[in-house]
Amino acid sequence: MPLIQIKVFEGVLTEEKKSEMITRVTEVVAEIEARPYPKEKLQPYTWCVIEEVPAANWGIGGAPSSLELLKALLES
Amino acid sequence: MPLIQIKVFEGVLTEEKKSEMITRVTEVVAEIEARPYPKEKLQPYTWCVIEEVPAANWGIGGAPSSLELLKALLES
Amino acid sequence: MPLIQIKVFEGVLTEEKKSEMITRVTEVVAEIEARPYPKEKLQPYTWCVIEEVPAANWGIGGAPSSLELLKALLES
Amino acid sequence: MPLIQIKVFEGVLTEEKKSEMITRVTEVVAEIEARPYPKEKLQPYTWCVIEEVPAANWGIGGAPSSLELLKALLES
Amino acid sequence: MPLIQIKVFEGVLTEEKKSEMITRVTEVVAEIEARPYPKEKLQPYTWCVIEEVPAANWGIGGAPSSLELLKALLES
Amino acid sequence: MPLIQIKVFEGVLTEEKKSEMITRVTEVVAEIEARPYPKEKLQPYTWCVIEEVPAANWGIGGAPSSLELLKALLES
Repeated sequence: MPLIQIKVFEGVLTEEKKSEMITRVTEVVAEIEARPYPKEKLQPYTWCVIEEVPAANWGIGGAPSSLELLKALLES
Repeated sequence: MPLIQIKVFEGVLTEEKKSEMITRVTEVVAEIEARPYPKEKLQPYTWCVIEEVPAANWGIGGAPSSLELLKALLES
Repeated sequence: MPLIQIKVFEGVLTEEKKSEMITRVTEVVAEIEARPYPKEKLQPYTWCVIEEVPAANWGIGGAPSSLELLKALLES
Repeated sequence: MPLIQIKVFEGVLTEEKKSEMITRVTEVVAEIEARPYPKEKLQPYTWCVIEEVPAANWGIGGAPSSLELLKALLES
Repeated sequence: MPLIQIKVFEGVLTEEKKSEMITRVTEVVAEIEARPYPKEKLQPYTWCVIEEVPAANWGIGGAPSSLELLKALLES
Repeated sequence: MPLIQIKVFEGVLTEEKKSEMITRVTEVVAEIEARPYPKEKLQPYTWCVIEEVPAANWGIGGAPSSLELLKALLES
């Protein structure tokens, strides 16, 4: 019954990336919590919800962020 | 002062259904918490916020969901 | 797939009240979202999580609350 | 590492107000938690996320709210 | 109707600091959203909930945090 | 700046499992969002918070859960 909620900047994840994130994070969480039992026991009861928030609504250290800041960080 | 937050798939609730959900869930929560006092005492201090998340952002068991999957489930 | 998260003051709900709240709120939400299909289709995929927060951590209008304030409100 | 999440009605905050809210709330939270150390120590590790919810999805006392209700309240 | 949820490490805020944080953050948020109307119009409808999470449950950059790390950061 | 919040039953994760979960989930999320850039660019800005909720507060399909139910599910 783990419940995973992930918030990211709006506009940075393609549908493929979202799908991959849901699959892989769910597997990791189910595997760790279920161990020593197989993760397949817990996986059907594991939910993962991605919520997208505009970068300008997201403050880091007191200043609104932006997709440009994220890009600059990644390219740094 | 109960605070209710409900997440649902985007696009499945009409405005009428949202309004009904807010009213009925608020009444149930206020009634149970206030008992043996009347629910009207607590109801003005009960908030209910509905948040809508695209089905593709919502993973059940590791796979993204969809409105088609929900429809198939309901019609099964 | 509705997800219901309810925050209440710590120490006000007995185990019986929590159980009743989970059952009744789940039924209401599943019924409204599933309609015109029967609520039983959606209910297994409806989660309801109650989180308890100390009243002193909960500010209404800028002042921390308390169990005494809640009691006074209910008895008013 | 404080994490601040603020939910407001969609459509009531300009970009300027959002930016001001992020800055000032971050400073207050970092200052209080860091004290007696300077707030600058904690501020880079303080996040503030604003989420906007349609007023019709937000129930107060069991009834959906609206921007008209908010306006009437402010002008009262 | 703004709703403020603040997560902090468990054990770092005294009751006095929590109370001050609730009061000051509520005032800032109500003032900005209500402007040009007085903040007193909106303040009664502004909630601020502080939730305390053990530092070991809080990962920054992939490693669990601790009160010692927070202390070292503040004293740096 | 991804923010990951994971809710699990209270009492099922050892400190070692929590630490492993934080590390591995953070890496997966940072890797996917940062790609084609290296995950190390984004990882310092990725937070992962685990919150533990008593099983009796967690309803699946309208009934409170329990650690016994979880155990039975895993051993099934």
